[in-house]
Amino acid sequence: MAGEIRNNGRRALLAEIRRNKRIPRIDLAERTGISRATVTTITADLLKEGLIEEVREDVTGKDNRRGRPKVDLKIRGAARHVVGIKVANKTISTVLHDFEGAQIADHDLALEKSVFGANELAEKLAEVIAGLVDKAGLDAEDISGVGVGIAGTVDALQGFVYWSPSLVDRNLALGQVLKDHLGVPVFIDNDANLVAVAERSFGLGQEHSDFIVVTIESGVGMGIVIGNELYRGNRGCGAEFGHTKVQLDGALCRCGQRGCLEAYVADYALLREATVAGGNPADDKVENLLGAARHGDPLAKSIVDRAGRMFAMGLSNIVNIFDPELIILSGEQMQSDHLYAEDVIEAMRKSVVQIDKAGPEVVVHQWGDLMWAQGAAAYALDEVSELAVSGIKPNAV
Amino acid sequence: MAGEIRNNGRRALLAEIRRNKRIPRIDLAERTGISRATVTTITADLLKEGLIEEVREDVTGKDNRRGRPKVDLKIRGAARHVVGIKVANKTISTVLHDFEGAQIADHDLALEKSVFGANELAEKLAEVIAGLVDKAGLDAEDISGVGVGIAGTVDALQGFVYWSPSLVDRNLALGQVLKDHLGVPVFIDNDANLVAVAERSFGLGQEHSDFIVVTIESGVGMGIVIGNELYRGNRGCGAEFGHTKVQLDGALCRCGQRGCLEAYVADYALLREATVAGGNPADDKVENLLGAARHGDPLAKSIVDRAGRMFAMGLSNIVNIFDPELIILSGEQMQSDHLYAEDVIEAMRKSVVQIDKAGPEVVVHQWGDLMWAQGAAAYALDEVSELAVSGIKPNAV
Repeated sequence: MAGEIRNNGRRALLAEIRRNKRIPRIDLAERTGISRATVTTITADLLKEGLIEEVREDVTGKDNRRGRPKVDLKIRGAARHVVGIKVANKTISTVLHDFEGAQIADHDLALEKSVFGANELAEKLAEVIAGLVDKAGLDAEDISGVGVGIAGTVDALQGFVYWSPSLVDRNLALGQVLKDHLGVPVFIDNDANLVAVAERSFGLGQEHSDFIVVTIESGVGMGIVIGNELYRGNRGCGAEFGHTKVQLDGALCRCGQRGCLEAYVADYALLREATVAGGNPADDKVENLLGAARHGDPLAKSIVDRAGRMFAMGLSNIVNIFDPELIILSGEQMQSDHLYAEDVIEAMRKSVVQIDKAGPEVVVHQWGDLMWAQGAAAYALDEVSELAVSGIKPNAV
Repeated sequence: MAGEIRNNGRRALLAEIRRNKRIPRIDLAERTGISRATVTTITADLLKEGLIEEVREDVTGKDNRRGRPKVDLKIRGAARHVVGIKVANKTISTVLHDFEGAQIADHDLALEKSVFGANELAEKLAEVIAGLVDKAGLDAEDISGVGVGIAGTVDALQGFVYWSPSLVDRNLALGQVLKDHLGVPVFIDNDANLVAVAERSFGLGQEHSDFIVVTIESGVGMGIVIGNELYRGNRGCGAEFGHTKVQLDGALCRCGQRGCLEAYVADYALLREATVAGGNPADDKVENLLGAARHGDPLAKSIVDRAGRMFAMGLSNIVNIFDPELIILSGEQMQSDHLYAEDVIEAMRKSVVQIDKAGPEVVVHQWGDLMWAQGAAAYALDEVSELAVSGIKPNAV
């Protein structure tokens, strides 16, 4: 119990230093409610362990006062390095962050296929990490943890994947397989959850304790942050926004069930409609269908409009349940523009319970390709920080 | 800040004593991580303030050891009394609890109408509280707080009601109106939220940190508990399960929107269908329609079955979003039996994302009439405890 209390103090101080970028010891005591004596003891330990460092402001600095130089504490970037990985359909994207969260390098690997055995995936990850570490001018031993975002149903706390479109087998202890293979702690989560972590750590969620992230790729994902914590559900399979039902006995979804939101808004759903409609205006590319809709083709427009209305309906259900302050629509493809359109958001607003107070802010945040990997790095950084708080040395797997 | 730390200690110890019913000081230190010296100081204060009391076990007690009598601490029931109120359609139900949470009395008042002005409602509440306090053999001054559960959209933290079917006006600072009228602190919340509080405080939720309560009355309500805390949303209008949409441009709901779950499962929705269907098998009473369905009338059965399937679909959306450990279906009317039926729960289970681990436990908890009022009392007790923690004397409004 004494150890736990000590760790609580270390965790609180490290988090406060991180939040403030730079902060003098005396402010730490004030903001955390931890006594000055304890702050002095703990920060001395953190300095000795190299997790934080002192920065001295020049005595002739901006406030021009004389006397003792002002000493701030900050996170020591070189203390740890983490890798964030997104396993996508035909690529693996990776980033390398230092302990301050600064991005040091990024590296991608094209894949010749989409579905892997666990060991095969581990080898691919080892390969791309080697390239990444090399780019950053570091050694493999410098990496203290690896975060992996993967589509599917993941019990993050157990590192267990119930199923993923990227994996041959169901029910895999993938975290353990990767850890054994890579020789560092590995932290796995559903990829949309990690976008929410990225938004919380260094995105639009920084100023909000409760918010929802909706991601659109080939599927529709969601991440839920409540009280600054990612909400993962009991078995790690909450936030399955794409498989909430928008129609009783509705369109067939790839998951085998009927009426899922994805079965109305995913690329394959749009193409299915276009094909069935006979005079297919869009051959087999969804870009062409979307283009035809933009140019006023009535059939294409009817197909794309319904997807938007179904998306608005699904989104309104989320608002009616969570009443969030902020919804972040997070995508990287122009392809999702029709779902993020002003009239879709407006339709959502008309479908939520009406009170005389404005509803949630809705922000479209079109990140680049690396968003997902950055989320995985943010998750790894959280977990590696926690290991450091507990006094566990880097690379002690 | 020092005061805040002191209050954190008081709050933690009071909560631990409450949780354990009876507990010796030494266990308090162990379970909370608060030092023995601080436990001694704080519990001495709490004893002096009359919030807790000592219970001495007889030296020839069950373990038959000799020596110093074992002294436990417990909450002192007489320290505070709270009233819980449910404002329903044509009745007001109330209960009176002591500081231990024991129910001392209950009292109902029949109403001649359903919709009230704020002052008019305040007078009705004063009347029913007077009757309740009298039944309990107490005085009005013995009441330290009143919890009120009311249907509608409520910002509980502000005591503000955006709208309620029980109130003439929208946007009412009802908490302030009632507090001025009754002369005690008043805590208002949406009634379904308070059922969740009741389940957490003394019901099936006691052993679960995350669970969902779904209530069925004339409307469909929901309460969400995450991390042992009620989740209320940003504006207090989350958990609007009854107005999540189950059909795009679907049946008209009393709220004016289309496709709400309530528009398929509420009494009026069933009767609307029965009437439209011509050979009305059920005159104008939903009981008769449900009875006809049970007896195999095909039309009645078709109407009731669809309500069940829509309810299953709505419930599956909740599971796909929250992945809860436990769902409590909470109602008091035989009238909801068709929605709580085994085949409805089974349909829900088939509509959630399938993984190789069992889904949520679903429990039907048919409480008596007083459930709602007990939830309101539990809420008032939480808030009155918090006032006591801050050292605020009872009746200091």
